[in-house]
Amino acid sequence: MMIDYEALATSYLEVWNEPDEAIRAKSAAELYAADAGYIDPLVVAEGVDTIVATIGAVQQQFPGWTFRLAGPVDGHHNQVRFTWTLGPAGTDSANAPVIGFDVAVLDAEGKVSAVYGFLDRVPAAA
Amino acid sequence: MMIDYEALATSYLEVWNEPDEAIRAKSAAELYAADAGYIDPLVVAEGVDTIVATIGAVQQQFPGWTFRLAGPVDGHHNQVRFTWTLGPAGTDSANAPVIGFDVAVLDAEGKVSAVYGFLDRVPAAA
Repeated sequence: MMIDYEALATSYLEVWNEPDEAIRAKSAAELYAADAGYIDPLVVAEGVDTIVATIGAVQQQFPGWTFRLAGPVDGHHNQVRFTWTLGPAGTDSANAPVIGFDVAVLDAEGKVSAVYGFLDRVPAAA
Repeated sequence: MMIDYEALATSYLEVWNEPDEAIRAKSAAELYAADAGYIDPLVVAEGVDTIVATIGAVQQQFPGWTFRLAGPVDGHHNQVRFTWTLGPAGTDSANAPVIGFDVAVLDAEGKVSAVYGFLDRVPAAA
């Protein structure tokens, strides 16, 4: 299976940026395995439906903010790592209020089965 | 379960540095789940016995070199990330010939069940 890791990371963040829950659920169902898991320091989400809801909660916490890829996407076999930023439109990556890092693991069908997330910068109030 | 992530990463690299295969196998059985998986760009190893053998092969490839922690160990829930270096004794981290990065995932018993490894620097000949 040839994997376009850059495209995968881009699609991944597009799902996190999608404000319409129905569209997000549809995109997420294409991206994630049904029983996918997502764990970062603040959230544990099991199953794609819970992940879709979690994304909605994050969007409500940071209205209008956008996830962006920051730096290179590095993948091999069924795993990929990338750094992302979250911030208001027009914020450059270096000044983003939130910086995170994910390792996404894909199943045999190329769907995201597990995401191991870490945070490199969080707002002081978080 | 309280996890000492720093101690875990230290024990992890001690296993990778252990030259005696019998001692390494014993330590690895304490550290890893029996069916643990390890994947980096160069190696896919399934099961603790295969991991122990893989470590021996890496040691033969780089005789006398040592794995060292480089930078902070960052863990939460059952996952931890850390950067390591591999190089001859006396090499400081910045000049290490090999730099890698691992995310290790622990099972409910605190044993390493999966390692997602990436390489940040490799020797030109590798």
